[in-house]
Amino acid sequence: MSYKAWFQCASGCNERYELNEIIYNCKTCGGLLEVKHDIEKLKHRSPGSWMRLLDERYRRTKWPFGSSVWGKKEMVCPNVDNENVVSLYEGGSNLFWAERLGNIIGTEDLWIKQCGNAHTGSFKDLGMTVLVSMVKQMISEGKDIMGVACASTGDTSAALSAYCAAAGIPAIVFLPKNKVSTAQLIQPIANGALTLSLDTDFDGCMEIVQKICRENNIYLANSMNSLRIEGQKTVSIELVQQLDWEVPDVIIIPGGNLGNVTALGKGFLLMKELGMINKLPRIVCVQAAKANPLYQSYLSGFKEFKPVQAQMTLASAIQIGNPVSINKAIKMLKLFNGVVEQATEDELANAAALADKTGLFNCPHTGVALAALFKLLEKNEIKKDERIVIISTAHGLKFTDFKVKYHENKLEEVESKYANVPLELPPEYDKVNRAIIDKISEYS
Amino acid sequence: MSYKAWFQCASGCNERYELNEIIYNCKTCGGLLEVKHDIEKLKHRSPGSWMRLLDERYRRTKWPFGSSVWGKKEMVCPNVDNENVVSLYEGGSNLFWAERLGNIIGTEDLWIKQCGNAHTGSFKDLGMTVLVSMVKQMISEGKDIMGVACASTGDTSAALSAYCAAAGIPAIVFLPKNKVSTAQLIQPIANGALTLSLDTDFDGCMEIVQKICRENNIYLANSMNSLRIEGQKTVSIELVQQLDWEVPDVIIIPGGNLGNVTALGKGFLLMKELGMINKLPRIVCVQAAKANPLYQSYLSGFKEFKPVQAQMTLASAIQIGNPVSINKAIKMLKLFNGVVEQATEDELANAAALADKTGLFNCPHTGVALAALFKLLEKNEIKKDERIVIISTAHGLKFTDFKVKYHENKLEEVESKYANVPLELPPEYDKVNRAIIDKISEYS
Repeated sequence: MSYKAWFQCASGCNERYELNEIIYNCKTCGGLLEVKHDIEKLKHRSPGSWMRLLDERYRRTKWPFGSSVWGKKEMVCPNVDNENVVSLYEGGSNLFWAERLGNIIGTEDLWIKQCGNAHTGSFKDLGMTVLVSMVKQMISEGKDIMGVACASTGDTSAALSAYCAAAGIPAIVFLPKNKVSTAQLIQPIANGALTLSLDTDFDGCMEIVQKICRENNIYLANSMNSLRIEGQKTVSIELVQQLDWEVPDVIIIPGGNLGNVTALGKGFLLMKELGMINKLPRIVCVQAAKANPLYQSYLSGFKEFKPVQAQMTLASAIQIGNPVSINKAIKMLKLFNGVVEQATEDELANAAALADKTGLFNCPHTGVALAALFKLLEKNEIKKDERIVIISTAHGLKFTDFKVKYHENKLEEVESKYANVPLELPPEYDKVNRAIIDKISEYS
Repeated sequence: MSYKAWFQCASGCNERYELNEIIYNCKTCGGLLEVKHDIEKLKHRSPGSWMRLLDERYRRTKWPFGSSVWGKKEMVCPNVDNENVVSLYEGGSNLFWAERLGNIIGTEDLWIKQCGNAHTGSFKDLGMTVLVSMVKQMISEGKDIMGVACASTGDTSAALSAYCAAAGIPAIVFLPKNKVSTAQLIQPIANGALTLSLDTDFDGCMEIVQKICRENNIYLANSMNSLRIEGQKTVSIELVQQLDWEVPDVIIIPGGNLGNVTALGKGFLLMKELGMINKLPRIVCVQAAKANPLYQSYLSGFKEFKPVQAQMTLASAIQIGNPVSINKAIKMLKLFNGVVEQATEDELANAAALADKTGLFNCPHTGVALAALFKLLEKNEIKKDERIVIISTAHGLKFTDFKVKYHENKLEEVESKYANVPLELPPEYDKVNRAIIDKISEYS
């Protein structure tokens, strides 16, 4: 059975392009592209047989199917030959049962999907493996591709650089000079990316990277690239798989450019279309109050959308005022009985810290999701007996400054309710003993 | 079949104790304890049947067997009831095929086991899940245990705190005042450990923590606790499992307190005893030249051992001059045709950086292992066609300062051969284009 996928214009004109074409927008109407699959071919296999196949491959040794992205290859990107797959064993991250946090907030069935427990420390690996593999495929077919470029200061450039380094393909990262430190860039730098620091702002970088890519057969790994969505959608499939193919009631996901809302929705819709699941979860998208254009639109019943000027937020990866994927995301939220909630700096930091006390180590974006959950439970928009899955997008080890400042009570606009301060004591048994006995009785 | 394990004195007197006893040394002779299993009972199951059982459980949803530690429960710690297991889905980390690095250094079959891709970012999770689960078991049996304590500045306190936080058991971390920053401690602090900062040095802390534990029914999670070894030994089993049950020729492991040498050896010996494998790999233990007591002993053919004064090294987790597990480790190395090698600061930092350029993100300890590999290949002590597995013990995200300083060429005693420095450019298409074309031709 030869499965097939292609790019298709998502703006209504339905023009099609091959996945091994270097293309980012529809040539006819300029619209965004999305990856479409030959669903009829996928339906030749029964739902139960798909589930069995995916389970059989999950975390096993047969290349490349042990990766949870490539174990779903036919539904993700069948157009890449196995020997061109660039995989760092994506997915398979813990679906953490938040038993203690659930007890504190009164939910019974709360799960936190630890997507940040990944090679480069964020969920971006899931999409980047597909994009870089497709580039390797094109190179193997004789396409003259010099490298892959992006303008990003964060998780995207880290993932791009690691996958390119593993593949031996040059990665080129564009950044505004003096706005980014070596520390922020240490992943691309360590992975040998060609790092260009331009004396301009972020928009200036974007302009030049686009022209460079257009003129030089350098592939652009921007967030509109819909190959990445195909990898990211496997989170939906994997988490259902980890729940023994039961669909949770609610999925909560932080939203900036909103590609992940689209990706998660796509995963669920595909499973439903193939008969693997019978219901859809509600999708809750959460934003920082400092960068909340989707939330504003939600308040108007999605009747209108206006970009906002994003302000500085601790949730830096979703500090976006004019999301690229806004239209796709709103469409998806309408299909999934969607809810949008926001969280202030104080709310997100305290929510992350409370959850950390129960064994997690949350990034601020997960803090936004947790804070939103607390609010929606209070409003009874999420019920306490529902099965809730929060998508945690990055490892807390990427955000140790945030945590240090929280526990030193030095974050602006945040009153650190759960700050944990070391006790200073003389090295005397009795005093130490007394202190432990006093403090342990307060432990919760 | 009721499997069984117990503590047994490893110093010759062979005294036995139950695993649910709060005990750290033999009551008769004061010797170190090790966990022994009823091997005859384990042998009731055939080798093939064990392999099938372990494969069936690996990363699946049935609690607690999806964890790669608890999927091997009968061989690890059968004495814990499933409902008392405190697991954060240990193991299952990528066995990274270092194809590009292998090409550079001329090996064909080089693998790097990414143990740092774990909940708390290091291999310590593997042992801590066993220790904290046993504590939960004891509490469930009515034992009065107030908490679990350790004196550690690093990965051990991070793992202890996370597992205790997940279990709802107080963790107590002892530290010398002014010698450790909030940043170094952020994992225990975030996970709500009771953190005591004592006005003394590290030895002073150890003394008090031991007395506190003795007098208060606080469990001591020190590195002599052999329950942790049982969890850590699953790395051997898991990596053989990931190689379709084929034993590699060489295992390379960084050594400080040397518990991990014992653990890895134990895993292989158990598999051999049960008939699951027919050969043993060689074990190569590697040390920083600044803290190399085992290496010094190796040079004398292990005839003598003298503690050294450990000097500051970038490989901070193995900066130990008087290893706790020295005797067990030497015994193990003799059984495994062991080799010991060392690496200087310059060698370890450059080795880590070279490997990073091929898609990894190495901690300095993995750098020690890589540098030692390069030297042993040169000396032909490891052959280029051998199957080599390096145990990478922590995630590079725990060591971003090390990487930043490397690429800024600011590490003492290190000449950064592979420093990657951002190119500063004006925002002009032609100049940027020229720079990319020039630089990409140098890409390797």
